Amino acid sequence: MLELEEKILREGEILPGNILKVGDFLNQQIDTDFMVKMGEEGARLFKDAGITKVITVEASGIALAFAVAQALHVPMVFAKKYGSANIAGDIFKASVYSYTHKQTFDIVISKKYLTSDDVVLICDDFLAKGNALNGLIHITEQAGATLAGAVIAIEKGFQGGGDLLREEGVRVESLALIDTMEDGVIVYRR
Amino acid sequence: MLELEEKILREGEILPGNILKVGDFLNQQIDTDFMVKMGEEGARLFKDAGITKVITVEASGIALAFAVAQALHVPMVFAKKYGSANIAGDIFKASVYSYTHKQTFDIVISKKYLTSDDVVLICDDFLAKGNALNGLIHITEQAGATLAGAVIAIEKGFQGGGDLLREEGVRVESLALIDTMEDGVIVYRR
Repeated sequence: MLELEEKILREGEILPGNILKVGDFLNQQIDTDFMVKMGEEGARLFKDAGITKVITVEASGIALAFAVAQALHVPMVFAKKYGSANIAGDIFKASVYSYTHKQTFDIVISKKYLTSDDVVLICDDFLAKGNALNGLIHITEQAGATLAGAVIAIEKGFQGGGDLLREEGVRVESLALIDTMEDGVIVYRR
Repeated sequence: MLELEEKILREGEILPGNILKVGDFLNQQIDTDFMVKMGEEGARLFKDAGITKVITVEASGIALAFAVAQALHVPMVFAKKYGSANIAGDIFKASVYSYTHKQTFDIVISKKYLTSDDVVLICDDFLAKGNALNGLIHITEQAGATLAGAVIAIEKGFQGGGDLLREEGVRVESLALIDTMEDGVIVYRR
């Protein structure tokens, strides 16, 4: 998505250690008009996949997942981080290691909200090693639901998570796919 | 908002201890089409207030805040819970006690995203004692921004937080305002 690629170059900030900050429009402050466009693009990519549910993990995936789900007119479900969960009864659970916070946490979705009848699209703001995505795939499998694929706002291709999943046959669509990010220069994959 | 009142009666669940569960459509699974309508209603209530920014706190407030902000075509900013924050530099911070989790946590917004030029609308899914709302008001004050008011999906009027804020002159608009919830019977305030 060319508009996103340009917006990252214009408004993103690269910090030491290959950290890309896009808090200005994507994950603390959200440019709502632009997020709606990203949602429409994500929905367009999967419009023929028969999606019944869009899932993500709290908190920074929620806005994109909502925007995609609203364009597809299907419900959105977000996995909660276990410590923060106020969920009674049966749950699907997966462990996710966060490089940002250097710890493993569990993510959970109530069994009520994902069934074997569902065709699932996963959304998230970032894809690096693919830990959150793998956790959501694991939950989708536990539910016996069909995985249609994933829409990611920004993939850090050089961290390999997306390509590993593609090799396993998962359809991963990233709206911006960064191949390299060295010395503050972003190069996109074409 | 009559449609929301009816939806709560139809799809909500009252658990012992006056706990209202609306995870089916509001805060784990989100009925996106309906959330868009709630967003439009929230935006309509504040359409002449000159709102420049909608703020909320992660995670369950994000969908409503996004829906309201998108209807107003302004940015949305969500406060992060401090432990989960990946925020560098200067921040505004407030302490919030959570009755759900029986603990106090800090919420933070980067100073970049809230300034004295902003006219702020606060959104959240629930209002009970008003702790989260007070935290967000405190952050708005620290920024020197103007508080236009708050849009809440469901207010538990019998817990008093909303009325206390109204007495202090804060414009609190709840899309559904529950006056009593006894023996599993919900009575709305008119």
